[in-house]
Amino acid sequence: MSEQNKKMVEAITAQEVDFAQWYTDICTKAELVEYSSVKGFVVLRPYGYAIWENIQRDLDDRFKATGHQNVAMPMLMPESLLKKEGELVDGFAPEVAWVTMGGSEQLEERLAVRPTSETLFCDHFSHVLHSWRDLPMLYNQWCSVVRWEKTTRPFLRTREFWWQEGHTIHETAEEAIAETEQQLACYADFCERDLCIPVLKGRKTDKEKFAGADATYTIEAMMKDGKALQSGTSHYFGDKFSRAYDVTFAGRDNTLRHPFQTSWGTSTRLIGAIIMTHGDDDGLILPPAIAPIQLVVVPVAAHKPGVLEKARELKERLGKQFKVHLDDSDNSPGWKFSQYEMKGVPLRLEIGPKDIEKGQCVLVRRDTREKYFVPLADLETEISRLLQELAQNLYNRALENREKRTWSATTMEQVKQLSAEHTGFIKTMWCGDLACEEKMKEEAGLSSRCMPFEQEALSDVCPCCGRPAKTMVVWGKAY
Amino acid sequence: MSEQNKKMVEAITAQEVDFAQWYTDICTKAELVEYSSVKGFVVLRPYGYAIWENIQRDLDDRFKATGHQNVAMPMLMPESLLKKEGELVDGFAPEVAWVTMGGSEQLEERLAVRPTSETLFCDHFSHVLHSWRDLPMLYNQWCSVVRWEKTTRPFLRTREFWWQEGHTIHETAEEAIAETEQQLACYADFCERDLCIPVLKGRKTDKEKFAGADATYTIEAMMKDGKALQSGTSHYFGDKFSRAYDVTFAGRDNTLRHPFQTSWGTSTRLIGAIIMTHGDDDGLILPPAIAPIQLVVVPVAAHKPGVLEKARELKERLGKQFKVHLDDSDNSPGWKFSQYEMKGVPLRLEIGPKDIEKGQCVLVRRDTREKYFVPLADLETEISRLLQELAQNLYNRALENREKRTWSATTMEQVKQLSAEHTGFIKTMWCGDLACEEKMKEEAGLSSRCMPFEQEALSDVCPCCGRPAKTMVVWGKAY
Repeated sequence: MSEQNKKMVEAITAQEVDFAQWYTDICTKAELVEYSSVKGFVVLRPYGYAIWENIQRDLDDRFKATGHQNVAMPMLMPESLLKKEGELVDGFAPEVAWVTMGGSEQLEERLAVRPTSETLFCDHFSHVLHSWRDLPMLYNQWCSVVRWEKTTRPFLRTREFWWQEGHTIHETAEEAIAETEQQLACYADFCERDLCIPVLKGRKTDKEKFAGADATYTIEAMMKDGKALQSGTSHYFGDKFSRAYDVTFAGRDNTLRHPFQTSWGTSTRLIGAIIMTHGDDDGLILPPAIAPIQLVVVPVAAHKPGVLEKARELKERLGKQFKVHLDDSDNSPGWKFSQYEMKGVPLRLEIGPKDIEKGQCVLVRRDTREKYFVPLADLETEISRLLQELAQNLYNRALENREKRTWSATTMEQVKQLSAEHTGFIKTMWCGDLACEEKMKEEAGLSSRCMPFEQEALSDVCPCCGRPAKTMVVWGKAY
Repeated sequence: MSEQNKKMVEAITAQEVDFAQWYTDICTKAELVEYSSVKGFVVLRPYGYAIWENIQRDLDDRFKATGHQNVAMPMLMPESLLKKEGELVDGFAPEVAWVTMGGSEQLEERLAVRPTSETLFCDHFSHVLHSWRDLPMLYNQWCSVVRWEKTTRPFLRTREFWWQEGHTIHETAEEAIAETEQQLACYADFCERDLCIPVLKGRKTDKEKFAGADATYTIEAMMKDGKALQSGTSHYFGDKFSRAYDVTFAGRDNTLRHPFQTSWGTSTRLIGAIIMTHGDDDGLILPPAIAPIQLVVVPVAAHKPGVLEKARELKERLGKQFKVHLDDSDNSPGWKFSQYEMKGVPLRLEIGPKDIEKGQCVLVRRDTREKYFVPLADLETEISRLLQELAQNLYNRALENREKRTWSATTMEQVKQLSAEHTGFIKTMWCGDLACEEKMKEEAGLSSRCMPFEQEALSDVCPCCGRPAKTMVVWGKAY
């Protein structure tokens, strides 16, 4: 390895040495983000934003296929509007950024930079909803929101982040609940199929649910280090908000009714999940479905006659079916190999004079480093197959990691021992009391991730208090 | 016409009666926007946002085809960062919204909600630019910005609006200037081809240029009422900003240099331009390229056997090639005709029992009201042809309006008389002095729209001062 390549690889901290530093290294060295001069805020650089654009396009198609429409709400909202629903404002007030001046004039009422937009959607619904015929209203918004966090970790915790927030209203509670379930299933399918990240689906405890929600559903992913990452949530509000914001419609019986409401969101956090689920000590590994570059073409001995021409011809040809980048810069092939490994490009295609003679090229998988000598005539078929296999392998490895790091416990002693020795998911039964949930935090450092839809009967009693168990909970340490 | 249809049509003010009120009526009755409860802010409703999404997709493809990449910058910036370039802050300070609190804590330094992002891009460039090999950096951002306007007109003047802002840096002044020209040409081509809006291309006078720019290029459209709408601008900054923000790179000769910079933007204003260029007393007329619905299928006598089935079959079939909406609600056909005319849907397809018998249907153009009886077998061909003809007709009508409302003048007397009698473009020569430009405003109520790239020699002297003329200017009243 050349000095230059070595320097590049050495620049990433190993996962074993310091997982948090490894993560930060990837974020900056793969050129996903830059810490901006605005404290707590990041810049999404072209490569990071391109991943987000692919996520957006994919999710947006899914939302539209189920009848959702995009809208844009104001980025600012008056304090009085935010305050109409007590739980929501209590939940968000400590982290709101306030606009108090417009130009040189002091505002009569300060305006919150949106931390989330339930209040604005409710206000809008109250103006445009008239009859049951207008229902359901299935809206979504792509935007950024601001929450005044104390610490900064790119994609995981920043004062501004990019997300989508779906907001829907329905004639009946049943339809609204079905919507929350549908959207959670949509997130889960997206994560598992396109991001190759297995997720646990379940319901949040009251302590962990969204401020003001009747019920919060969640998908929870496990990172390589065993910590949990909440990756998407879906909330059912009943008619609580629509009562608070006076959203009404004339029902089929001509009486005035309140619609039932949901919201659901996922964010640039998903990029954090991709990094920490699949990445290794050489950098990112990107799932093909959202990779800005699926295949990089690297000419070898590019100065030899015919090599660059062949590389360009392949880029042209393969570009019709895949996202292809040709690096014909004058950097060394070794430097390029490191560079695109760092950036997590799923496949590398090497082509040199000898390959051309033999009518073949070399394909290298980012996940396994396996090399394949492929006849040029078979390239499209082989690339498709390898991308599929790579995606499946990413998913399998992540699932294996989760299974290896998931334990069951029936006593507090077991829980404490497991938690002291490992980081991962710990399954226990639970009586449903907040006190026991808090005890888990204090004594074992664990928070409830969710009450999984797929329940198991581990025992009859709560390990904290010994009273009858109501449900199984998955506990963990969370990002 | 039924009572219900009449009420609907009557609800729009006629253009002749009050063009401004007609415009506002369209914005709300075609369900493009809603005035939000946040003063000066609007909600983009699904139909309005869908138009914006189509504009975004189209422009984004064009930007990417010329090598631009999207990024996301922070929405807030410290006052000290904004102040580094004097002219920029002087230009924007009076209309900045200021965040002074984060959570419950007073900020040490207040943060501006971005009114435009030159400063943030410069700051970023100063961190990531190293060598001439990194150039050019061709970045773009889709976002909303906030400017504390006193008045509110949807799409034209709101405290928040949605736009794209391109920001690029280059090794040489020539390359940067070529970029501003390329992007202006891109805007012009998009407006003329896809929005069917003819535009004048030219350069802004110093008085009208962007705060801090060396040169601002603009495309100016003329609305039906003769007023001008600035529809896109492209700015050349020289190295002024890169000096102010200390953006440097190692040049080919290994000396430290400042890159040359551009920015260019267009916004949801374009929707205002579409409304006021093409709309009529029955509502919007949308150019096919950006219409959320290109063709609406309206079943007639839908209760008769086979009608709805046929309508659904046509929707399915035509949906493969066009953006088709089937309205199978139980509203009357007459109500539906009015509704989709209001929404500017380019083509209507009517299908009833007699049509089915004859193996035909009726197509109605939104722009000319012409009816076409079309054999079902020929539909795709006929729809393509009619959409093309409609687009061409929209463009021709707009061009005709502009030509009818464009005058030349060589004396102040002529200018004042023309301006008193008409609203439109007035072409004169100009000496280049600010004093004469201000006199045009005071005495004739006109502002300079641009110095067109296509110059004419109308006379040798400036009509204001009689001194030698330097250039031809197009003057007008602007939105």
